[in-house]
Amino acid sequence: MSITLRKLDSSHPDFNAQLSAVLAFEAEEDHAIDQAVVGILADVKARGDAAVLDCTNRFDRLSADSVASLELKREELQAALDGLSPVRRAALQAAADRVRAYHERQKQECGSDGFTYREADGTLLGQKVTPLDRVGIYVPGGKAAYPSSVLMNAIPAKVAGVQEIIMVVPTPNGVKNELVLAAAAIAGVDRVFTIGGAQAVAALAYGTATIPQVDKIVGPGNAYVAAAKRRVFGIVGIDMIAGPSEILVLCDGSTDPDWVAMDLFSQAEHDELAQSILVCPDSAYIEKVEASINRQLADMPRHEVIRTSLTNRGAMIKVRSMEEACTIANTIAAEHLEISAENPQQWGDQVRHAGAMFLGRFTSESLGDYCAGPNHVLPTSRTARFSSPLGVYDFQKRSSIIQVSEAGAQTLGKIAAELAYGEGLQAHAQSAEYRLRKS
Amino acid sequence: MSITLRKLDSSHPDFNAQLSAVLAFEAEEDHAIDQAVVGILADVKARGDAAVLDCTNRFDRLSADSVASLELKREELQAALDGLSPVRRAALQAAADRVRAYHERQKQECGSDGFTYREADGTLLGQKVTPLDRVGIYVPGGKAAYPSSVLMNAIPAKVAGVQEIIMVVPTPNGVKNELVLAAAAIAGVDRVFTIGGAQAVAALAYGTATIPQVDKIVGPGNAYVAAAKRRVFGIVGIDMIAGPSEILVLCDGSTDPDWVAMDLFSQAEHDELAQSILVCPDSAYIEKVEASINRQLADMPRHEVIRTSLTNRGAMIKVRSMEEACTIANTIAAEHLEISAENPQQWGDQVRHAGAMFLGRFTSESLGDYCAGPNHVLPTSRTARFSSPLGVYDFQKRSSIIQVSEAGAQTLGKIAAELAYGEGLQAHAQSAEYRLRKS
Repeated sequence: MSITLRKLDSSHPDFNAQLSAVLAFEAEEDHAIDQAVVGILADVKARGDAAVLDCTNRFDRLSADSVASLELKREELQAALDGLSPVRRAALQAAADRVRAYHERQKQECGSDGFTYREADGTLLGQKVTPLDRVGIYVPGGKAAYPSSVLMNAIPAKVAGVQEIIMVVPTPNGVKNELVLAAAAIAGVDRVFTIGGAQAVAALAYGTATIPQVDKIVGPGNAYVAAAKRRVFGIVGIDMIAGPSEILVLCDGSTDPDWVAMDLFSQAEHDELAQSILVCPDSAYIEKVEASINRQLADMPRHEVIRTSLTNRGAMIKVRSMEEACTIANTIAAEHLEISAENPQQWGDQVRHAGAMFLGRFTSESLGDYCAGPNHVLPTSRTARFSSPLGVYDFQKRSSIIQVSEAGAQTLGKIAAELAYGEGLQAHAQSAEYRLRKS
Repeated sequence: MSITLRKLDSSHPDFNAQLSAVLAFEAEEDHAIDQAVVGILADVKARGDAAVLDCTNRFDRLSADSVASLELKREELQAALDGLSPVRRAALQAAADRVRAYHERQKQECGSDGFTYREADGTLLGQKVTPLDRVGIYVPGGKAAYPSSVLMNAIPAKVAGVQEIIMVVPTPNGVKNELVLAAAAIAGVDRVFTIGGAQAVAALAYGTATIPQVDKIVGPGNAYVAAAKRRVFGIVGIDMIAGPSEILVLCDGSTDPDWVAMDLFSQAEHDELAQSILVCPDSAYIEKVEASINRQLADMPRHEVIRTSLTNRGAMIKVRSMEEACTIANTIAAEHLEISAENPQQWGDQVRHAGAMFLGRFTSESLGDYCAGPNHVLPTSRTARFSSPLGVYDFQKRSSIIQVSEAGAQTLGKIAAELAYGEGLQAHAQSAEYRLRKS
């Protein structure tokens, strides 16, 4: 049974509306889930460890007698690492090393040293940059447990200088994911608790007797985890709440169609809601990719997921030119943008909105997912219009520095007082005026 | 009737619990407000301009016949600016110039150029930094309408390179704040609509026929606005949802007590929930400040607000040393931290968590509020543990750049495939393997 992907043509008068329909995705907010989460958050806030223990035993079908017993010892992480095959261990270590090297560079380049400058009258202004003290990383249990995500979340925090990283990962029925634990060992995670769900988010946000309160919680989770993160936002920091994963491939029509088909599969295999879109000026090439999709699909172990994803959410867009493809890329603001073309940089330069750009025929998205170095936690659902890949900067924050000299206070005090009176804030004005020299 | 402030002593065995009680503040989430907001958001999403017009006429008691008629012409902004007294206009211009200069510096220093680097095998990695396309600034109407906030929200966006800034400001009963409009003219705001509340947030988030969709909404508002921003987070970016304003003064006991008392007032006069705390190793000095508070209070036009704020939320903390004061400052993570001491830098170096640091006796917070240069939109309610002043970086976002060379694909492809197989993602693996040379 062959797949037929939705075809769009940018010269069609209804193209913009058709494209909007393809992109439309709204995370359903489930009121029942949200209410359950509100209850769990309140319970953990009130009862601490006891509530975490109850929830964990109930939802993950365990019979632990304390939260402390749910903490994994460092030796257990190391044992997981030592248990890997040499090839897999080397691959994980190589990936970690490259991710660390990229984020070290990012730290250097993104203003991590802060700055100060002195004005003529001696006034000093600047910005101090400091790491967060303690961060929580949520790692899903079960099928969506990705060791690569452990690296991508923990390493930037480490590079930023976060002193303590607490990982939480549920172990339903007591089943541990050895590859995830090995990744935690490599990434330098400080403590690991085998808890999950809204109760884990609550424990990290409020702190309990056993689990220390963190300053920020990052990492993906199911609908309960997402609802809990939304609710604790403000008490702690959170990363973006991710939607389904997406790939947008701009192709000039001369990459091997099998490569592009497989790149579309690599997104579609994540889950049924994932979105894979090909944009190309060559309609014959689009047909070749579709033929390749149908030729290769049966060989894919996850062909059912791929079929559903491509049928429901995939699309192939014929455009008039690569320039137009870039304009469409700016509208879509994709999480992953592959530019599979000669001189890809010229097209990349025209794209303002994308989570990550994979340039050139040899840059399959999967290289970036695992080991190129840049982060694979990227803004989804068009949020690349206003947000960024997870990075060192997400684990740092800034403080403004203002040291006004006595001379500076004479100039600034008059300006501030004038504006403060204008806003009806007399204490503000007088506080500035006290610093004026009596004359 | 004199004020008695809460006194704490760091040597008291219950000090930590007492301090927690002083800091405890939880924004009440009003279910009725949230439900009203859900209705307004859905209405604007469905009916666009018609809904915005209905809400505006009803809530602001207007009788406008179109949303277009609610847009202010550029000449009206310029007229407001021309109508200011020369002294006030010069003060506003001087403040804007200083805020712009600081944020230009911030742009230079915070990695706005992005970076790329090439590895030995020709693989190129990097990060591209681009401004947001279009930003919405919410400005409250009525008593909390601060022209300084217009500057502080709009100028960093301009400096970042945002192409279009849309300001919304409600005009209940048709009353406009001329100083706010003048500030919009100076800051270079592109379009102004006299709408407010959840309907304005909805219009900016979804777009209507008249009001363009923005990529991010910043600026403070009432409980309806805060609830609406929380709800549209993800469709557009939002800034932090601010709590009550706070000042923490660390004083070595040799600043004029009247100055420190007025600095505490300048925070307390904002509103009844504002928090002013003095920390000092000298108990005699604390008494002097309290005496000054009681001596000066009656002269303050906003003395009722100040009294309520200081009585309910203020505190004076006696510590053993300035070192201990810095430790406490890290716990409080104040929005505004004044270090009124000799050699303030030595204490500032010990503080990791604060929105802005005001160093030295001449640096009253009010200088920073208006015209020192750094932003006055700062993280409140201990969120300085994980978040930053509003800045140029809030109006930029980053995209990762990955261009793997053919040689690089040989190395990275093997690592990626190994890890992809480990995660059960065969299309990821095969996509990487297609780029390996057949040998």
